[in-house]
Amino acid sequence: MTTSELINQLQQSIEIELQNTVDQFIPDKNNELYEMLCYHMGWIGEKAGPEAQGKRIRPVIILLASAALGCDWHKALPAAAGMELLHNFSLIHDDIQDASDLRRGRETVWRRWGIAQAINAGDCMFTMAHLSMLRLKDNIGFEKTIKAAGLLQQAAIDITNGQYLDLSFEKLKEVSLDAYINMINGKTASLIGCAAELGGVVAGGSTLEESMLKQFGISLGLAFQAQDDWLGIWGDSAMTGKSNESDIVSGKKSLPVLFGLQQNGTFRDRWMRGPIAADEVAVLSKMLIDNGAQEYTRKMSDKFTLEAVRALDRLGYNNEAVEALRELVSMLINRKK
Amino acid sequence: MTTSELINQLQQSIEIELQNTVDQFIPDKNNELYEMLCYHMGWIGEKAGPEAQGKRIRPVIILLASAALGCDWHKALPAAAGMELLHNFSLIHDDIQDASDLRRGRETVWRRWGIAQAINAGDCMFTMAHLSMLRLKDNIGFEKTIKAAGLLQQAAIDITNGQYLDLSFEKLKEVSLDAYINMINGKTASLIGCAAELGGVVAGGSTLEESMLKQFGISLGLAFQAQDDWLGIWGDSAMTGKSNESDIVSGKKSLPVLFGLQQNGTFRDRWMRGPIAADEVAVLSKMLIDNGAQEYTRKMSDKFTLEAVRALDRLGYNNEAVEALRELVSMLINRKK
Repeated sequence: MTTSELINQLQQSIEIELQNTVDQFIPDKNNELYEMLCYHMGWIGEKAGPEAQGKRIRPVIILLASAALGCDWHKALPAAAGMELLHNFSLIHDDIQDASDLRRGRETVWRRWGIAQAINAGDCMFTMAHLSMLRLKDNIGFEKTIKAAGLLQQAAIDITNGQYLDLSFEKLKEVSLDAYINMINGKTASLIGCAAELGGVVAGGSTLEESMLKQFGISLGLAFQAQDDWLGIWGDSAMTGKSNESDIVSGKKSLPVLFGLQQNGTFRDRWMRGPIAADEVAVLSKMLIDNGAQEYTRKMSDKFTLEAVRALDRLGYNNEAVEALRELVSMLINRKK
Repeated sequence: MTTSELINQLQQSIEIELQNTVDQFIPDKNNELYEMLCYHMGWIGEKAGPEAQGKRIRPVIILLASAALGCDWHKALPAAAGMELLHNFSLIHDDIQDASDLRRGRETVWRRWGIAQAINAGDCMFTMAHLSMLRLKDNIGFEKTIKAAGLLQQAAIDITNGQYLDLSFEKLKEVSLDAYINMINGKTASLIGCAAELGGVVAGGSTLEESMLKQFGISLGLAFQAQDDWLGIWGDSAMTGKSNESDIVSGKKSLPVLFGLQQNGTFRDRWMRGPIAADEVAVLSKMLIDNGAQEYTRKMSDKFTLEAVRALDRLGYNNEAVEALRELVSMLINRKK
């Protein structure tokens, strides 16, 4: 089986597990709460389908990490569903908090059903995430299930801490690079670290193996975010066509912007004078390059990627699943959108 | 020890357990997220203290239910904290959903810190609730801990289902009494039922004992809500002084109102003509009495109370804790606000 066939197979199993989980915990299929959850997951409504569902990267990582240690990945499916539901709950609430109209090219839940119902739908999905974890008990026993459930909950605490920081940053003129890394550690990297670690826990890995997997996930998460920040300024949709999608216009304090602000150069001068219009995007992204922000962001992304790969190396396994994890890293880091 | 001394002692232990739980899971005490949580729990900020904390009824029920079956109630403290945190998370989100300015006489979290941060603070408290449950493992072992954690999570699903219905009702002209009871079953009674059942699980009760305790809690929750609805129209603050606190003015579809609407009498005629002003409250609450709504609400409250007491009787224990549960019932049902 090729790596992409394997990942494809995992994605299909994850999708079925997710649907079964939602069906199990919402007995009444005739109400709008069920509709909201299924819509957000990309199963129903306009433009439903693979594009609306996303790539299910986090649960794929759980399954691959468990298989990397020689475990039958089917055992990890309840954790995979729990992880993806937790991620999606946070997206439902994020969209309200950021007043975002679109998610994966579709109207967000709060835009369709209002803020009150969207908060509640997120809460429901959050609970399902944790309930899903408890089903691990039939596969890995009570003790390890409690460990796994606790890890996902700790990651959820980290997410709320990261989100708290992110929301606070909006009110600040400037944020240090350290504070920014701390924020994305909580908001993004922690959950991906948890995904890889959970694979290790389900597989019954050693403490060292679990910790290597966690390190792999955290580094991958940081690399992913650095790349995301790069694309937010120099990616296709930011630079060409819809310049209003550039982080420069939205004023997002991303890695390149924060680095640029530290340089006391042309970028900082212009940024501090107030909001930037779409037709200035080309000039300002050039300023950021001249001030070294592009090189810095690339270097950070490379550094975290290398750390992720090294953690995999140190795990010391060579099999189909480890190969797939390596390919996942390169796929995420070389993506163009 | 008198019953009220016992309840007092439990409340103090619960408060300490709650503070330890929040302190344990938020390592950084210097941020506003920690402040929001401590403010909402009534520990800091203006008017902090017992009034702002509430009576912690649900965790008291857990501890008493465990003691009723002869268990040392200290074992149940992690569940008590988890239960109260879950209840308080739901209040933080409720206040956003209902656009409420005040909670226990103080500004609500969203009024103070904005909707985005309040959603996040609620999410954080929600996670802590579930994390707290997992600490039961040191007291009652892994298997029972998973059972207890699952019960609280199922109750959280019920809450979101009840809240979904409650929010939907706002848009409807009329709601059947059955649909209303179904809604408060999820939104209110389920959590109190879960509290009593959790006490049984921690104590290692039989399936029958757990089910009696659950029935006790559900019935008590329904009685409590019926009484709450009664007070919303004929209570002191609804009838005298601040008539805008009457459910008749806010248009809340409570038990007496829904019964009144079914009678096709004077109340229904007036209600259907549109919003009711504060100076009409006396007339309309009189209409409701004439249409039999007060008697109906009292009867429902009495019926549920009797069911609660009977469930306690059938439990077949007679001790200090059961006595305290009985007194709790009469305290909640005879309260004036």
